[in-house]
Amino acid sequence: MTGVTMRYMAKPTTPTPAAFGDPLYRTGVLDLLGVLAIGEFSAAERLAEDAKMAPGMPTKVAIYSMAVAEFGHFIKLRDRIEDLEEDPFEVMAPFVSTFERFHTKTAPNDWLEGLVKAYVGDGLAADFYREIAAFLDSATRELIMETLDDTGHSEFVIAQVRSAIEQNPRIGGRLALWGRRLMGEALSQAQQVAAERDGLTSVLVGGADRPGMDLAGIGRMFTRLTDKHTLRMESLGLAA
Amino acid sequence: MTGVTMRYMAKPTTPTPAAFGDPLYRTGVLDLLGVLAIGEFSAAERLAEDAKMAPGMPTKVAIYSMAVAEFGHFIKLRDRIEDLEEDPFEVMAPFVSTFERFHTKTAPNDWLEGLVKAYVGDGLAADFYREIAAFLDSATRELIMETLDDTGHSEFVIAQVRSAIEQNPRIGGRLALWGRRLMGEALSQAQQVAAERDGLTSVLVGGADRPGMDLAGIGRMFTRLTDKHTLRMESLGLAA
Repeated sequence: MTGVTMRYMAKPTTPTPAAFGDPLYRTGVLDLLGVLAIGEFSAAERLAEDAKMAPGMPTKVAIYSMAVAEFGHFIKLRDRIEDLEEDPFEVMAPFVSTFERFHTKTAPNDWLEGLVKAYVGDGLAADFYREIAAFLDSATRELIMETLDDTGHSEFVIAQVRSAIEQNPRIGGRLALWGRRLMGEALSQAQQVAAERDGLTSVLVGGADRPGMDLAGIGRMFTRLTDKHTLRMESLGLAA
Repeated sequence: MTGVTMRYMAKPTTPTPAAFGDPLYRTGVLDLLGVLAIGEFSAAERLAEDAKMAPGMPTKVAIYSMAVAEFGHFIKLRDRIEDLEEDPFEVMAPFVSTFERFHTKTAPNDWLEGLVKAYVGDGLAADFYREIAAFLDSATRELIMETLDDTGHSEFVIAQVRSAIEQNPRIGGRLALWGRRLMGEALSQAQQVAAERDGLTSVLVGGADRPGMDLAGIGRMFTRLTDKHTLRMESLGLAA
């Protein structure tokens, strides 16, 4: 089998590791990089747009800094796709409409909703990265882990949201609902992508010579993602 | 004199060098950092906004990358103002309206005008930084020189503009006019700032124990800035 032959031929530092000998794995990883890349790109773009609603320039600067960090993640993912000798924009193309739908359905009404969205989205993405890292070749895994760093602004978001709720407790109820809506929309879009992209799901479920999760494992993964979302909402002082 | 006394007391690595003993110099440098900071900030913000007009995602990404580089310059300048124990947003405040006026009067009609504006603006700012560097204390000078790096996208802008003109030579005439308008507006805003901020001009003209330019020197500086602008327009294939 090509996959096995190549595994023994490949050097650990090669940019296209052995696992890429399995065409379904290659397609799946490219899908994965593509979906993550367009996700980071569109998150950065929307956040920069939401920053316009910020009350004053220091807050605006903090939000732009988050957008810049997300854009930096995008650049790393784009470069990796180029290293794999694919056109990053073609690889991203199938997922553009997914994120357009997501962002249209979750357009924030004010800058606080924008902050919560960025925080919840970054966190969920990071948790998902961690979940799938084990099933990836080492080069892809390292890249994904690098983009894992949160945008370094969790503390800022937590402080802003908590202080807003302190000043007006009703905001807490609204933002809690908002967090639930974000999670619901994210899961619904994720489900749609998973249903449409066999390669992508094959990265998770494994192949003949690759480990993976079974259906129950995937179910447990979603439970873990939801649990962590709940903790994140609690750190903001919100009921999930 | 305090300025002289402090000069001998200060260590070369101190974040607030000797020259800051002269209150007019300190005010002037803070003004300078403030005007540069809000300049970079507003350039980044406008460029990100102009990117929306880009024809396709690769071009959009290239424009966002320029905006991100400008935002990085802003962050360095902001941090330096904080090191000097001032509130960066207060220091920037007097110049916010200057850049609002500039950007309102030079709102690009398409993404090419946006690119030319960023290229011409970055270049002009860099030339001005180089001109004033000689009159600054070494710590401020080093910082300014660091923010001098162009946003790394000159080649991209030149290629895009030249190829657009090749496809439609009439674009060249329109963009040449546009470049002249940009330079005219920049000079007019600069003149207004110089007239209003004594501290800022004092950095250029010097003080009792600081070297500076005389009026003829400032005239020659503007000639040099205009000459370099002409060269920049020529590199785009445009008549200045």
